[in-house]
Amino acid sequence: MLSFTMEYFLKMNAQETLTGKYGEEGSKLIYDLEDQGGELLSLRYDLTVPFARYLAMNKITNIKRYQIAKVYRRDNPAMTRGRYREFMQCDLDIAGEYDCMIPDAECLKIVAEILTDLQIGDFEIKVNHRRLLNGILSVCGVEEASFKTVCSSIDKLDKQPWVEVAAELINDKHLSSQVVNAMEAYLCSRTKIKDSSPNTALIEHLRLDSLLSANEDAQTALKELSLLLTYCDAFGIADRVVFEPSLARGLDYYTGCIYEAVLTDEFIQSEINEEDGTVGSVAGGGRYDQLVNMFLQKGRGVPCVGLSIGIERIFTVMEKKLQKERKRIRSNETDVYVASAQKNLLLERMKLCRALWDQKFKTEMSYKQNPKLLQQLQYCEDRCIPLALIIGESEIQRGIVKLRTVPTRQEEEVPRDQLFNVLNERLRRTSTDNS
Amino acid sequence: MLSFTMEYFLKMNAQETLTGKYGEEGSKLIYDLEDQGGELLSLRYDLTVPFARYLAMNKITNIKRYQIAKVYRRDNPAMTRGRYREFMQCDLDIAGEYDCMIPDAECLKIVAEILTDLQIGDFEIKVNHRRLLNGILSVCGVEEASFKTVCSSIDKLDKQPWVEVAAELINDKHLSSQVVNAMEAYLCSRTKIKDSSPNTALIEHLRLDSLLSANEDAQTALKELSLLLTYCDAFGIADRVVFEPSLARGLDYYTGCIYEAVLTDEFIQSEINEEDGTVGSVAGGGRYDQLVNMFLQKGRGVPCVGLSIGIERIFTVMEKKLQKERKRIRSNETDVYVASAQKNLLLERMKLCRALWDQKFKTEMSYKQNPKLLQQLQYCEDRCIPLALIIGESEIQRGIVKLRTVPTRQEEEVPRDQLFNVLNERLRRTSTDNS
Repeated sequence: MLSFTMEYFLKMNAQETLTGKYGEEGSKLIYDLEDQGGELLSLRYDLTVPFARYLAMNKITNIKRYQIAKVYRRDNPAMTRGRYREFMQCDLDIAGEYDCMIPDAECLKIVAEILTDLQIGDFEIKVNHRRLLNGILSVCGVEEASFKTVCSSIDKLDKQPWVEVAAELINDKHLSSQVVNAMEAYLCSRTKIKDSSPNTALIEHLRLDSLLSANEDAQTALKELSLLLTYCDAFGIADRVVFEPSLARGLDYYTGCIYEAVLTDEFIQSEINEEDGTVGSVAGGGRYDQLVNMFLQKGRGVPCVGLSIGIERIFTVMEKKLQKERKRIRSNETDVYVASAQKNLLLERMKLCRALWDQKFKTEMSYKQNPKLLQQLQYCEDRCIPLALIIGESEIQRGIVKLRTVPTRQEEEVPRDQLFNVLNERLRRTSTDNS
Repeated sequence: MLSFTMEYFLKMNAQETLTGKYGEEGSKLIYDLEDQGGELLSLRYDLTVPFARYLAMNKITNIKRYQIAKVYRRDNPAMTRGRYREFMQCDLDIAGEYDCMIPDAECLKIVAEILTDLQIGDFEIKVNHRRLLNGILSVCGVEEASFKTVCSSIDKLDKQPWVEVAAELINDKHLSSQVVNAMEAYLCSRTKIKDSSPNTALIEHLRLDSLLSANEDAQTALKELSLLLTYCDAFGIADRVVFEPSLARGLDYYTGCIYEAVLTDEFIQSEINEEDGTVGSVAGGGRYDQLVNMFLQKGRGVPCVGLSIGIERIFTVMEKKLQKERKRIRSNETDVYVASAQKNLLLERMKLCRALWDQKFKTEMSYKQNPKLLQQLQYCEDRCIPLALIIGESEIQRGIVKLRTVPTRQEEEVPRDQLFNVLNERLRRTSTDNS
């Protein structure tokens, strides 16, 4: 997989990297980061906050958009698991004043559709609601000022067992063990529900809970989650969705439902997750109704819901799966290779390439003037290019082209005026064979 | 056109932008740029230098790749002409030890193919060779140490008349007027060639020039340019290519042939170029055989040739063209809109959307629980969505769907089990009408 150098340059020695490459005029335009009027700069951490800022700056009241771009985390990279300091995020967000949980359900549908289409095995989408967490913390006796820092600890529950998180809450966040025990009863309640429809049963269990039933945040959240599940059912993804009261997601800006997609395929679990004990979280998101507000001097910001997909993580999983299935990963899309059997046929190869390019065939040829036939054919086999066209003096004179099916090494003669049709037919056949 | 905020943040007031949004764990990972171990940082100026650095760091000996990403110039932005401080570049590069001018010709073919497919009117691709420029400067008496700074002035010839450039060469670059006059004879020789095949005639004219005929750089360059033109002919783009001895391109890293694509459509010229007197340069590139070397401690770097397309510039041109033709620019790709004629049909709309999504129809619906029919249909007309499906209680009971052709407002009833076929057929018809 290609991984390019970071988008900014380490100019440890200016002579070595940037200067002396862009010329006189260019050098004036290089964007040095140390001296832009004394402003403090940071690299983009995610795509959500910039999106919210964009909405605020441009006074946009509704938009649905996706964005695929790089973000930066000053984290410890773990290459083998697809965790880098610079990585791609694929985000989709729906901004606008809409009715409760309808765009939220569409976000879950989109996550489910993408993960299904990618064929990376089974997955589930955990859902929860920030106001339910607030309600639980509140009835357990956590002070409102500590909600965010406590949520940040709860967020580690996908990587750490409850006892470790509980210890952190008591030792670092200074909660009493009584409060932490009370929290456990709610946060770990999922495992205690034995029911054929555990999502509904768990919502009902919490709704009727003696303490939560009097908490407005919790009741609103449970009502919204119930609606979300109904919509997920209409979208045909109810079996993918798991209501998980301990799901917290660390980001401060979420205000409503939150979700996280996790790969549950056994092979993935054993291959990737056990390396560091984490589950294979590959997508996440939630509702953030106040974030746009934070960029406005006055007026009301637009409510938003969105999702983010970790593409490097998914690529790592896909590569490991292909390795396991002993499938070769093709790193090119070339369908047709134009080869020559003799010397001095460069211009003929070029003309044939041109004709194929004009017909939108994905074609390449050697960049050598007089390449050896064997080397050209070897190139096709190494790169899994399905078809090769071979021309020589006699073929040109006879108005034909030799068509070689690379995997079988079979060759046949095709009249030049039937070439496009024959290629189209062969490529259709190849793509059917592979699917 | 969407234009997102810059990839880095101006943290003028940390409270306002980044902090308090990513939570406790996240805040630790924000990549501040002022204090990474005292390193000096710059934003990426182009994609070529990072590509060369990538090849050097990973010891890659051959690769052909494209990349579409953002770059930054601390320039004066000019929004109306599609010139921004942050903008996208689309680059293609071919790296590897290959035979002379073969990958270079493919780069020109690719530029021509892209500009042709985009239908933005006539264009020409100016070509020149760095070693020809060196040869010309050398025989005119410019010292080798001044080649780069002199080329940087010559590069302005597409925006400034010769007299201005000559003045800069004499006043700022301290060349004698004798030297500058000698340069003019060569650099402005294109206009003096009256021949049915001016490229060939001009090469011949320079090849036989009394001074240049003894200059190795110039002779090599002319031989290579001649070869390049032969290959362009085989690729069917000879009529697009114009040999222009004054084309300089400001970047220091070019070592061989250089090229620049210019829009020559009259409408484009009058609409866009005259605003600032520049020609509509939309793509450029060239050979840079020494750039990878500069990142290596030892060993030989890989020779490269590449091209870069200015996509914002092209978008600006396309938008002005569409405006002129009074064509509306559709900002969505939705083919089918699912609407309801009565209240309480949200779940039915969701189920129909799901069925259409599963069949890969580009579908959307209102995010309101009970949207008004008129508002839904208005939405379709405003957004140029071609087809709307309308459901009501009676339609559901009768197992049919009402299909509305949005532009004509005609409606027909389609049995539910024939819906996909009918939609496919209608969409085929629509796309034929539009093309």
